[in-house]
Amino acid sequence: MIKKIPKQKTNFSEWYTQIVKNAELADYGPVKGTMVIKPYGFQLWENIKDSIDRMIKKTGHVNAYFPLFIPKSFLAKEAEHVEGFAKECAIITHTRLKNDQKNAIVVDPESKLDEEIIVRPTSETVIWSMYKKWIQSYRDLPILINQWANVVRWEMRTRLFLRTSEFLWQEGHTAHETEEEAQKETLDILELYRQLAEDYLAIPVFTGMKTDSEKFAGADKTYCIEAMMGDKRALQAGTSHNLGQNFAKAFDVKFQTKNNNEEYVWATSWGVSTRLVGAIILTHGDDKGLRLPPKIAPIQIVIIPILKSEDDKKKIKLYLEPMIKSLMSSDIRVHIDWTKNTPGFKFNEWEMKGVPIRMEVGPRDIENDQVVIVRRDLGEKIFLSKKDTLTKVPNMLEEIQRNLFNQAKKFRDSNTFSVTSYKQFCSIIETGGFVRCGWNGSPKTELKIKEETKATIRCIPFDENPIGKNCILSGDPAKYEVIFAKAY
Amino acid sequence: MIKKIPKQKTNFSEWYTQIVKNAELADYGPVKGTMVIKPYGFQLWENIKDSIDRMIKKTGHVNAYFPLFIPKSFLAKEAEHVEGFAKECAIITHTRLKNDQKNAIVVDPESKLDEEIIVRPTSETVIWSMYKKWIQSYRDLPILINQWANVVRWEMRTRLFLRTSEFLWQEGHTAHETEEEAQKETLDILELYRQLAEDYLAIPVFTGMKTDSEKFAGADKTYCIEAMMGDKRALQAGTSHNLGQNFAKAFDVKFQTKNNNEEYVWATSWGVSTRLVGAIILTHGDDKGLRLPPKIAPIQIVIIPILKSEDDKKKIKLYLEPMIKSLMSSDIRVHIDWTKNTPGFKFNEWEMKGVPIRMEVGPRDIENDQVVIVRRDLGEKIFLSKKDTLTKVPNMLEEIQRNLFNQAKKFRDSNTFSVTSYKQFCSIIETGGFVRCGWNGSPKTELKIKEETKATIRCIPFDENPIGKNCILSGDPAKYEVIFAKAY
Repeated sequence: MIKKIPKQKTNFSEWYTQIVKNAELADYGPVKGTMVIKPYGFQLWENIKDSIDRMIKKTGHVNAYFPLFIPKSFLAKEAEHVEGFAKECAIITHTRLKNDQKNAIVVDPESKLDEEIIVRPTSETVIWSMYKKWIQSYRDLPILINQWANVVRWEMRTRLFLRTSEFLWQEGHTAHETEEEAQKETLDILELYRQLAEDYLAIPVFTGMKTDSEKFAGADKTYCIEAMMGDKRALQAGTSHNLGQNFAKAFDVKFQTKNNNEEYVWATSWGVSTRLVGAIILTHGDDKGLRLPPKIAPIQIVIIPILKSEDDKKKIKLYLEPMIKSLMSSDIRVHIDWTKNTPGFKFNEWEMKGVPIRMEVGPRDIENDQVVIVRRDLGEKIFLSKKDTLTKVPNMLEEIQRNLFNQAKKFRDSNTFSVTSYKQFCSIIETGGFVRCGWNGSPKTELKIKEETKATIRCIPFDENPIGKNCILSGDPAKYEVIFAKAY
Repeated sequence: MIKKIPKQKTNFSEWYTQIVKNAELADYGPVKGTMVIKPYGFQLWENIKDSIDRMIKKTGHVNAYFPLFIPKSFLAKEAEHVEGFAKECAIITHTRLKNDQKNAIVVDPESKLDEEIIVRPTSETVIWSMYKKWIQSYRDLPILINQWANVVRWEMRTRLFLRTSEFLWQEGHTAHETEEEAQKETLDILELYRQLAEDYLAIPVFTGMKTDSEKFAGADKTYCIEAMMGDKRALQAGTSHNLGQNFAKAFDVKFQTKNNNEEYVWATSWGVSTRLVGAIILTHGDDKGLRLPPKIAPIQIVIIPILKSEDDKKKIKLYLEPMIKSLMSSDIRVHIDWTKNTPGFKFNEWEMKGVPIRMEVGPRDIENDQVVIVRRDLGEKIFLSKKDTLTKVPNMLEEIQRNLFNQAKKFRDSNTFSVTSYKQFCSIIETGGFVRCGWNGSPKTELKIKEETKATIRCIPFDENPIGKNCILSGDPAKYEVIFAKAY
């Protein structure tokens, strides 16, 4: 059942929630903060997953799987790390249920564990406890491992896909001989993430480094891709961390170098998550619902038969059969909606679900040897001869992909401002947008601006140029040029 | 480093453990009972996963994802279900860590949850709590959902892949209008599992129904595929359950029928897990290590260059390049081992890892325009002209696939006995093998045999014929013909 959803401009937050619901992407789970990813949302995630999985494998990484459970003592080994995750853990203390005297099911106190177990919020600690066993010499390096997994971080204010207690992600964990190699890996992966965002999800991103206050708990340096959502707020869409020797030291992982010395191993970790589904909605969605980039759309073309009789149905089936066969043999994902709903209902439903191309075929189209095509990004009807359909549709999908990216880029660029006065700064942050400006590099300045405006430094972009700029708050000569915004 | 592993016949259990270790399939995790799946083992699992995922999707099922966390009260809603899983739960009671006065990291008692949370041992309860929201009318049915997930069942006696506290699996959960439809689904899926086992994993299986004492906690009927391992013990390799209306009743899921009545929904669930990796080792492994069926082998052909100089290396590279290109374009998974180990070492290593075909190429082979081929299942050297390689290798992979199946089938069939006396029965169970015999259908008989011999009824096979047979223990006329064996 498609209900009216609020207009984006009226209530952006409710608009988002209603798209997630009406496009049948996800639902709330029974335990507070958990999410059920429904089949359509999961297909979208599978397509994102397959895209990045291919890139990761092509660059020499391999998948593996590490346990969900981490001994409490492991989490505590890296000081900043435990600090970062201590307040949002799921902690397992017992292993048995039993019936009490009133025949209710209760936790059996006798099953209490000697050491509590943490459900992984991220896997650095459990993985480095294994790398300790696997790494002896430079011959064991590099290790280039990725895993697809669920992780848990207790969240009280849930937003489906954006902030949930459990989410799905990939987490890469690599081990290297040298600092340079680890740094190169960190940046190479960030570049893959940029490609994933821009070339597959059609989301333009800024790439850059996080400030110390925003970096991963346990990293030396965190790099990120940052995107602008439809409400002009920022969303961190992927991060890549240079962990230095922090986890190697915490888990005492040394290796014999080529020169017969002993040294701690250098590490990286990096991840993207189901949050990307949220990013797609927030970047491309409009008042009619989702708009999906063709490369990752579960359905690229939905066909709506326009029929009045069983006879029409037979004719349309016959007419469509060879076309669908051809489209599918070109790996185009086609779906025909034979349900009994009205065409109008179907138009709304598939617009809500963001299918890039709608094709309508009725008896009159058969007479004219044509089909009607409506692009989700343009909304105009065009007529194509049946013959042209097969050649033009693949190009059209590419055009939609490009157009969604260009629209998003135009929106982002026109809402990104270089400013020099704090007054301007505050006014833009207030009304929405990204601000590029100088910063003196002081965490105090950063904190003060956050307290006063709720804006945070999203990144120090790679193309920054502090020369000749002053700190937006203090007026000191700028150490960095940074991007400020309110963020998800 | 390849170490000598014990011979299968000398110490089967240690032989298994050493293969898992030396073929680099898996390792023990830090929390007791957990497993790390190493890259080579995970690639094997990914190939199995992709095979069954394709079959599941082709038959109209879709993937989705449900939360890891189940409220304790949900697990308790189906009486048999909670009984079955209560003694092996991971129970979450708290959500925060803090520093105590001595600065140690401890569980914050103030973060105690109102209701404890269970880490899913299987997802029937959480899924049916959602189906309650999603199903109102026959128009919402069937629901044909599958999920790939990790599940947790506390295990104290760990065996990698076979019995671990956390394992990976797919679990299908379907909802239907009628009992007949649910029963058909249950059996259709069992047939997919049979195909997966026999056609992909080359493991012959018996298909049949479980007795009441062996069925899933909460099912009306459980069907299974049962395989014979190299030590003649049985391994349950997949199960498909007809859940009747049990979970619909527990979660009050009714639907409006076509005739405008209200009825409880009919359900099935079914799964295969990382246990299948164990089944492959135990079925096909030999004293040299793994033997992998080509269809799911991460590497189908490993090429060992035989070289004495850098010049040899260049020549071999040049010689191999077009061949590898051709093989890979036929989707054959090829790997060249350029490491500095000796050829002998490499032969052992890749035999341990079970690669179906080894190809050796040295300067003399280049002169003769040939390659040397050694099949893992036969072990004989054969010479192929370079030209023939491309046409013969795909056939050879098919032959190996068939041969592994035939060998396993021959082994199973020659160790499966139809018996009529309990003395014979005990002697076969003692020395190893499957026994087909009559059973009077009484759980008491089943239990007594289990106590006396450790054998359990693996299944009532679909091709059973009790007519004219007597119960192996009581001598009563048989109600069923069943298969008994000691099991993993």
